[in-house]
Amino acid sequence: MAQNKKQVEQITDMEADFAQWYTDVCKKAELIDYSSIKGMFIYRPYGYAIWENIQHLLDQQFKQAGHENVYLPMLIPESLLQKEKDHVEGFAPECAWVTYGGTDKLEERYCIRPTSETLFCEHYANIIHSHRDLPKLYNQWCSVLRWEKTSRPFLRHREFLWQEGHTMHATAEEAMEETERMFNIYAGFYKDVLAIPVVKGRKTDKEKFSGAEATYTVECMMHDRKALQGGTSHYFGDGFARAFDITFTGKDNQLHHPFQTSWGVSTRMIAGIIMVHGDNNGLVLPPRVAPIQVVVIPVAQHKEGVLEANQAVVDRLRAAGFRVKMDSSDQSAGWKFAEYEMKGVPLRLELGPKDIEKNQCVLVRRDSGEKAFVSLDGIEKTVQTMLDEIHQGLYARAQKNLEDNTYACASLEEVKEKMSSQGGFAKTMWCGDLGCELRMKEEAGVSSRCIPLEQEHLGDTCAICGKPAKHMVYWGVAY
Amino acid sequence: MAQNKKQVEQITDMEADFAQWYTDVCKKAELIDYSSIKGMFIYRPYGYAIWENIQHLLDQQFKQAGHENVYLPMLIPESLLQKEKDHVEGFAPECAWVTYGGTDKLEERYCIRPTSETLFCEHYANIIHSHRDLPKLYNQWCSVLRWEKTSRPFLRHREFLWQEGHTMHATAEEAMEETERMFNIYAGFYKDVLAIPVVKGRKTDKEKFSGAEATYTVECMMHDRKALQGGTSHYFGDGFARAFDITFTGKDNQLHHPFQTSWGVSTRMIAGIIMVHGDNNGLVLPPRVAPIQVVVIPVAQHKEGVLEANQAVVDRLRAAGFRVKMDSSDQSAGWKFAEYEMKGVPLRLELGPKDIEKNQCVLVRRDSGEKAFVSLDGIEKTVQTMLDEIHQGLYARAQKNLEDNTYACASLEEVKEKMSSQGGFAKTMWCGDLGCELRMKEEAGVSSRCIPLEQEHLGDTCAICGKPAKHMVYWGVAY
Repeated sequence: MAQNKKQVEQITDMEADFAQWYTDVCKKAELIDYSSIKGMFIYRPYGYAIWENIQHLLDQQFKQAGHENVYLPMLIPESLLQKEKDHVEGFAPECAWVTYGGTDKLEERYCIRPTSETLFCEHYANIIHSHRDLPKLYNQWCSVLRWEKTSRPFLRHREFLWQEGHTMHATAEEAMEETERMFNIYAGFYKDVLAIPVVKGRKTDKEKFSGAEATYTVECMMHDRKALQGGTSHYFGDGFARAFDITFTGKDNQLHHPFQTSWGVSTRMIAGIIMVHGDNNGLVLPPRVAPIQVVVIPVAQHKEGVLEANQAVVDRLRAAGFRVKMDSSDQSAGWKFAEYEMKGVPLRLELGPKDIEKNQCVLVRRDSGEKAFVSLDGIEKTVQTMLDEIHQGLYARAQKNLEDNTYACASLEEVKEKMSSQGGFAKTMWCGDLGCELRMKEEAGVSSRCIPLEQEHLGDTCAICGKPAKHMVYWGVAY
Repeated sequence: MAQNKKQVEQITDMEADFAQWYTDVCKKAELIDYSSIKGMFIYRPYGYAIWENIQHLLDQQFKQAGHENVYLPMLIPESLLQKEKDHVEGFAPECAWVTYGGTDKLEERYCIRPTSETLFCEHYANIIHSHRDLPKLYNQWCSVLRWEKTSRPFLRHREFLWQEGHTMHATAEEAMEETERMFNIYAGFYKDVLAIPVVKGRKTDKEKFSGAEATYTVECMMHDRKALQGGTSHYFGDGFARAFDITFTGKDNQLHHPFQTSWGVSTRMIAGIIMVHGDNNGLVLPPRVAPIQVVVIPVAQHKEGVLEANQAVVDRLRAAGFRVKMDSSDQSAGWKFAEYEMKGVPLRLELGPKDIEKNQCVLVRRDSGEKAFVSLDGIEKTVQTMLDEIHQGLYARAQKNLEDNTYACASLEEVKEKMSSQGGFAKTMWCGDLGCELRMKEEAGVSSRCIPLEQEHLGDTCAICGKPAKHMVYWGVAY
């Protein structure tokens, strides 16, 4: 067990230094590597495989909801980016600019897309003419660039992978329905696939997307009680459509501007998985996106029939649709246990000569460490049940963390006090003024996370200024 | 049928102007659109869906062969690109250069990846230490940029989608085996999935990849008898590994450089599909990658029970795993027939009141126009059989085009004469000298397509200079 111990010791304790623990997990679980350009990370096979699973499951949901995938250019001419005023102000400062093509200086600079609203609008202006062409429900899987000053794996990359949906509708109502529909798909995905509870709400004007009329968000709470914005869905009205001169002939034979949405989630989801579920032994993966759901470790594998019996179990589980890996390498059992714990594999299956005699195997849960001897008869069903239980267990634990650390505050002073002692989400009434939002940031160090869809009446007045309150808001320290 | 006629007339006749026919098909079948940057195209839903199907099927084969997907940054520092001399000479002239990050001028220019050998090598230097770390079998799905002067949809984009495999091996033999294995996977994919026959061979030194020791290629013949390079697989020896100082401790406890391969196919495959199988009514898609395999057109759909009966057939076919679309829009039957012919849907299924009475439907093949009345009993099996027949039929037709237009020539004069009258592939003996290859280009306008793996002995002397021959070579005019 010496090697086992050694590897585990290499991870910083999460209670001692959560940030260092996080970086350690990203490196030791082989999710990510650094490149020679600051802030541009390498998605290693194990990290990328999580993204592939997310992508596969989300893509199914998008397609079932009627969306089609497209791929638009990665470069945006500066003049195109400038067409919508708020949008360019938000994004231009963090664009990477291409100025040379081969040996020729370009007549106009091109930025690498930080997001693609402008490109989609240019395309939509070409292909939308009649009400028959609506709605357009497009989605794109790609990478985008934002020239950030600081960076952290999965949380803040200069280049990151994401999907961006961009849709056009004949009416404002339809576009608003789409905004809500996609936002609900995200919330459901967090719960049902990633085992992460979310707070669903609307962003304040200060926090909304550059150029949007309304931004909806799903907010998650990490293990260290900080907030992570998990995904956003924007309603644009017809602002971009006017700026880009997109029109269609309605059933009334008149020209109209269509109404627009966009929505996206990114590889930040992986940061959420790590920071919600992980522990001091490393990653803990929710079973539905785990690249390896069951790792099979033969015990006393040199003995006759052991490898064959293990392979038979692997074959049965694979045939049942599970993602399974057998490790019959010459590493010690202790090394293997630590390795797959670090990698967050939900279930470990051990099978040795004595088990074979008894027609049983050992299943060890990554989340709780619980060990069970189970019959090989119906092992497929047992594994499925246990993976579902792990999912439920992870969700319940995360839900408890969220509930235990969300509390009402009646004053800015109370927010300051509770934030510094407990962290988490403070909920207060708010008058809706930017001034109060800025004071919260300056004095309590928190940003508004969202105006939750499920409003509670905590009082009649703004916790900051005492004027009449308009909304209940969640505040927190965000990644 | 007026509308039908009208739409068909919009495509140029392929015999009259093949290039214009090709562009018409790309536009009218809604595969592609232009953006405001020259040479940067928009992959529209129908075009992108073909790529998704290709990607899905190829990715399965890569994974079965043990490869893992990764994602590396899209930017390459200029100093990194310069580490391998031949490589930078080949690619630097067509790189797009990023010089500003936000408002700051960068200290070093970054190019957008034209290919990622240098990035993979940098990463491999970090993660390969021992013979236990080998082989590394990585693949990446991404887009790359090459600042081309001219452009055509799918054939030559400044930005295009592709996959690039990059592998590292302990021995030269293993790396060479990998090069051949992947090249054979490509050849098999062209035949079994795209219904396109290929000529398998090695590139001459002049035509090989910048920095490679050997490049293998699959060459296809288009309907206009021009050549398309369908995919390449490169063997690098340990040249890059030395340039990037990648070493591993062997079983002998000594330091060694690993041996490397890379291999890729791109959305050029779609150009191949269009130009091999298409006809004067538009696209003809090989069934295994067609986004819609069967289009269901209800006949007299206003009559009672017709839509329900059509929907029932759609449900049955979908349950059997086919990609099916029903068009019950209010467009005329003639419009619908022309539309799905243009889009190359392999099978059209028509079902009206009389058919329902007789428990039958009509199936019309896109490739041959053949029409058959078939029973609804076992329709799943009938459709599968017919799609397989279409695949075989498309392949046979393409194979005939390839065979009919490949011929032996004994002299440069004969190549000139045959090329100008017939086009296609001329095969000749060749001494191996660059001078003769250049003369072929200058005088006959052809480039060497490959030195086929299956060599034929056409004579003892080079068809160009008369000196002793080393190889038989295929020559042609390439896209």
